[in-house]
Amino acid sequence: MTHWKLTLSYDGTGFHGWQVQPDRPTIQGTLSAALRFLTGETVLPQGSGRTDAGVHALAQVASFSMESPIPAENLLHALNRALPPSVRVLAAEPVAESFHARHSAVRKSYEYRIFCRELSKAGGPAPVCSPFLAPYVWDCRWPLALEPMQQAAALLCGSHDFSSFAASDPDQAERESGVASGPNPVKTLFASACVQESGLLIYRVTGSGFLHHMVRNIVGTLAEIGRGALAAEEMTRILAARDRSAAGPTAPPQGLFLVSVEYPREAQP
Amino acid sequence: MTHWKLTLSYDGTGFHGWQVQPDRPTIQGTLSAALRFLTGETVLPQGSGRTDAGVHALAQVASFSMESPIPAENLLHALNRALPPSVRVLAAEPVAESFHARHSAVRKSYEYRIFCRELSKAGGPAPVCSPFLAPYVWDCRWPLALEPMQQAAALLCGSHDFSSFAASDPDQAERESGVASGPNPVKTLFASACVQESGLLIYRVTGSGFLHHMVRNIVGTLAEIGRGALAAEEMTRILAARDRSAAGPTAPPQGLFLVSVEYPREAQP
Repeated sequence: MTHWKLTLSYDGTGFHGWQVQPDRPTIQGTLSAALRFLTGETVLPQGSGRTDAGVHALAQVASFSMESPIPAENLLHALNRALPPSVRVLAAEPVAESFHARHSAVRKSYEYRIFCRELSKAGGPAPVCSPFLAPYVWDCRWPLALEPMQQAAALLCGSHDFSSFAASDPDQAERESGVASGPNPVKTLFASACVQESGLLIYRVTGSGFLHHMVRNIVGTLAEIGRGALAAEEMTRILAARDRSAAGPTAPPQGLFLVSVEYPREAQP
Repeated sequence: MTHWKLTLSYDGTGFHGWQVQPDRPTIQGTLSAALRFLTGETVLPQGSGRTDAGVHALAQVASFSMESPIPAENLLHALNRALPPSVRVLAAEPVAESFHARHSAVRKSYEYRIFCRELSKAGGPAPVCSPFLAPYVWDCRWPLALEPMQQAAALLCGSHDFSSFAASDPDQAERESGVASGPNPVKTLFASACVQESGLLIYRVTGSGFLHHMVRNIVGTLAEIGRGALAAEEMTRILAARDRSAAGPTAPPQGLFLVSVEYPREAQP
């Protein structure tokens, strides 16, 4: 029996999210089918967290155990031949049995990309969001001011109760933690910043963990601030409210990328 | 009655090519449906040429006439609201009635993108083609040598009979020209070059016109040269043969981009 850590990149466009579902293409289901095709074994790889339908990953991590003796390099190439081009295995490593993609994770980083007409405009006609960008950004229809968004994003750094940014559906809120009593809403953000890059407005966040919809709800709130509907300082009040209804709407899924998942040294191979 | 020139960008991934087909999504059909939705008029925009299923466009040009009086800026925005995000109108201009997107075109430029393991590799493990790149490149499984491909590409510049690179299906060969007697196989290439850029091998070509499958057949032949199956100088013999069977296989569609279409000054608005 070998315990495996896989690092995966995927384009979430054509998938109904990470978690396996009957009769719908999902990342977990597609990966499980590829492993069964290769080895005959039925295994369900556990991800570092569930990404929603349309959300992408640059480096998602998954773990599972398998009987089949197969060298790591072979597993990587065989999986990439069996998987669709929209899902790629970037690394396959045997790890200690104690390693669990979700429970062992200590930090996760996300990036949210916004195509913003105002940022791209320089006196000319309103720019059009390229069809090659559209599946990977929020094509935001109103102008956004970067500076107040930068101020508000910084106010989220540190340890806080992020209930205001958790999915209001309690069933959904449990999904990330997998704990029936509901997830601990206190998380630590090590970085939370808005930058302008390559004509896009990008929100980058690194934290100890994230509640369901948390990044998309933060971005929806930052956009309210960027368009002037809320002042940057309101972010402190929204956080303190610990109430989903205090924050802005949920930003659409396709702008969100899971960038990386970090583990303590001892959990590494 | 206004005669219109539209400049369009599209991601060809989800479409069965340019030309309208019953019960299948095509660019022409999608554009025609958007115009009917906006104006109630049934018009079939003519493209500068038909792109195949999976082929992309950075700036395709289409022309059509319409009764509805609508300002150009409004037409652009209304069409972009009616079209899916995978098809964007970049410009809409009223033009002289004599303008025809295909007949008036004097030069077209294409780009073909190859993800090539050998180029990306530097002693490390074989690179994996990113899921975000896969729909826009040929993920070529063998190493390609750039220099002989550069030499061979240059041999195609000038006026030649390109029959060796025309689709062997005569019905398909007629598609580009629309002339029942078959297209004139003599075309002039003003530029034909291979470059290495951003980890990709890119073939760029500008010509007076192109036969059906011509760019993809040239790239399939260049790849045979790049992998060492043919010498660069063989390109001259292949061209002279005026026989499809002398050339290499047809490269897959998703690496091909229609980059631009040029018109004489008098055909402009």
